[in-house]
Amino acid sequence: MPSIKDVANLAGVGVGTVSRVINNHPNVTPETLDKVNAAIKQLNYIPNEVARNFKMQKSNMVALVLPSIWNPFFSELAYYIEDELDRKGYKLMLCNSGGRPDKELYYFDKLNQNKVAGVVGITYNDIEESISADIPIISIDRHFGKKITCVTSDNYTGGRIALNELVNAGAKKVAYLGIASSVYSEVILRKNGFIDEAKAKGVEYFIHEEHDNVYNDDLFFENFFAKKIHQGVDGVFANTDLLAAKYIDRAKRLGIRTPENVKVIGYDGIQDNTLFHPVLSTIRQPVEEMARMSVKLLVKKIEGEDLDQAIYRVPVKYRVGETT
Amino acid sequence: MPSIKDVANLAGVGVGTVSRVINNHPNVTPETLDKVNAAIKQLNYIPNEVARNFKMQKSNMVALVLPSIWNPFFSELAYYIEDELDRKGYKLMLCNSGGRPDKELYYFDKLNQNKVAGVVGITYNDIEESISADIPIISIDRHFGKKITCVTSDNYTGGRIALNELVNAGAKKVAYLGIASSVYSEVILRKNGFIDEAKAKGVEYFIHEEHDNVYNDDLFFENFFAKKIHQGVDGVFANTDLLAAKYIDRAKRLGIRTPENVKVIGYDGIQDNTLFHPVLSTIRQPVEEMARMSVKLLVKKIEGEDLDQAIYRVPVKYRVGETT
Repeated sequence: MPSIKDVANLAGVGVGTVSRVINNHPNVTPETLDKVNAAIKQLNYIPNEVARNFKMQKSNMVALVLPSIWNPFFSELAYYIEDELDRKGYKLMLCNSGGRPDKELYYFDKLNQNKVAGVVGITYNDIEESISADIPIISIDRHFGKKITCVTSDNYTGGRIALNELVNAGAKKVAYLGIASSVYSEVILRKNGFIDEAKAKGVEYFIHEEHDNVYNDDLFFENFFAKKIHQGVDGVFANTDLLAAKYIDRAKRLGIRTPENVKVIGYDGIQDNTLFHPVLSTIRQPVEEMARMSVKLLVKKIEGEDLDQAIYRVPVKYRVGETT
Repeated sequence: MPSIKDVANLAGVGVGTVSRVINNHPNVTPETLDKVNAAIKQLNYIPNEVARNFKMQKSNMVALVLPSIWNPFFSELAYYIEDELDRKGYKLMLCNSGGRPDKELYYFDKLNQNKVAGVVGITYNDIEESISADIPIISIDRHFGKKITCVTSDNYTGGRIALNELVNAGAKKVAYLGIASSVYSEVILRKNGFIDEAKAKGVEYFIHEEHDNVYNDDLFFENFFAKKIHQGVDGVFANTDLLAAKYIDRAKRLGIRTPENVKVIGYDGIQDNTLFHPVLSTIRQPVEEMARMSVKLLVKKIEGEDLDQAIYRVPVKYRVGETT
């Protein structure tokens, strides 16, 4: 662990100056402040006082950072994460980041200061640069380097299952519809599994995809239905349930009926009852298992244990509904 | 505010003994411990050290206590509460209580200890006994005494609107279906408004209701459809959207179609898109407004301001769907 001397040496100032910066002393020039803060950041230096606090009173707070709790997939995930944290004696701090870097980074900052014990995150920014080594973070779906353990569903197998189930339901020409993350995420494996399986089975397929930072409902479907290759598609795999439902709705307006004219499979399993229709055929994410596993791995990290994998992929299942 | 002397007097011990109890000193007999703790609780005594901490470093954490974040109404509420708290510089601590007293009371305890700045709660236990006066709490839907401010939708008017909209849609004989809270809650006004309006308009009506602590889907609907009075019902107001959807599903199995044979109106407005059917006709709760108002009122309480009302009722609107 770097010391206050290391910070002083790197910044080219005395130890007393570093101490004044840490304690928010007024008599520090802006230039000195910048130099010292840069050295603190570069070394991931944690002031003694905080280090002492860390030993004396560990925070029992875990932050959950996700785009929006309103999303049914995330609210189910948060439900089980809170339940598992409660069993382990931790409390949940919730942040809807909306993908905003400032909101995401705030919590990783608190983590560096030991004001939260750990973070479970579904993040859209490069957090790896701004955190210390071996810090207790579990990332859902997004795979960073070795520092950050990732928990995700088995997206690749999910894509393969979707292709096979469309074919089983009678589809001869299939399309993959996807909203792609603007940062690298395991979600892309849904597409890769689908493509590989289509090739292996010799099924005609094509890909229609847009990035989440420019995605727009109207344009996405206008472009899809304008493509010549769209003619004759009788099987669709959408990379989320919501996108599958949107496709079904748009197709219906053009007289294309599900499942009579086209079979549709989504991904997630957000419908927790069969009261609302169509009940989607879908690749169901094991949300409860992912949530509990994330917390268990996080607690191990908090307690200083080494984890044996960098990425944990939880098996998915096909759930048949009314759309295949 | 009670002093350490008041605690000592009530417990019949010396000030030094109270101090030893507060500081977890080992040389205290179990009898003395019980007496002192009882006196601390009865007086709502806050030890000096905590009081000092309160002045020096206010918590910026607000706890949101609700039955389950998985419920779409609560996840929308939590989304806007977090957003408004973020604007005011507060962080959100989330608790799914499942109605469990120990989980609910934990957070009110933290509030008494100033470890959280305030609580927004949808609670099922009698919390009023266990909290100090003027403590920053906002209750959603449940109206306690003056200590705890309540924010709720205008349930009474919602019930009246539902009756009128069923009649406008052609219903001649209407039923109210309700899951009633086992504790007093403002939600009961949905029923009262419905009944009063039915009487005023001279519309034939009846009530079918069960308490949440014994409610069971199968029994509830078996009993409803077994009632002789159920014959000829052509309008149903259910006190939540989910109950409305369940009714529609059960009625369909008996060959009763919505809206052809029976018009149905729910309460909440949980559907945030029209992709899944039936799109319910509903009394839409102003969730965003309720959430932001709760936070604004809570912050006023945290800052020591007096509020001019004990209960704030936010207007509701009828949203027409496919079921009337």
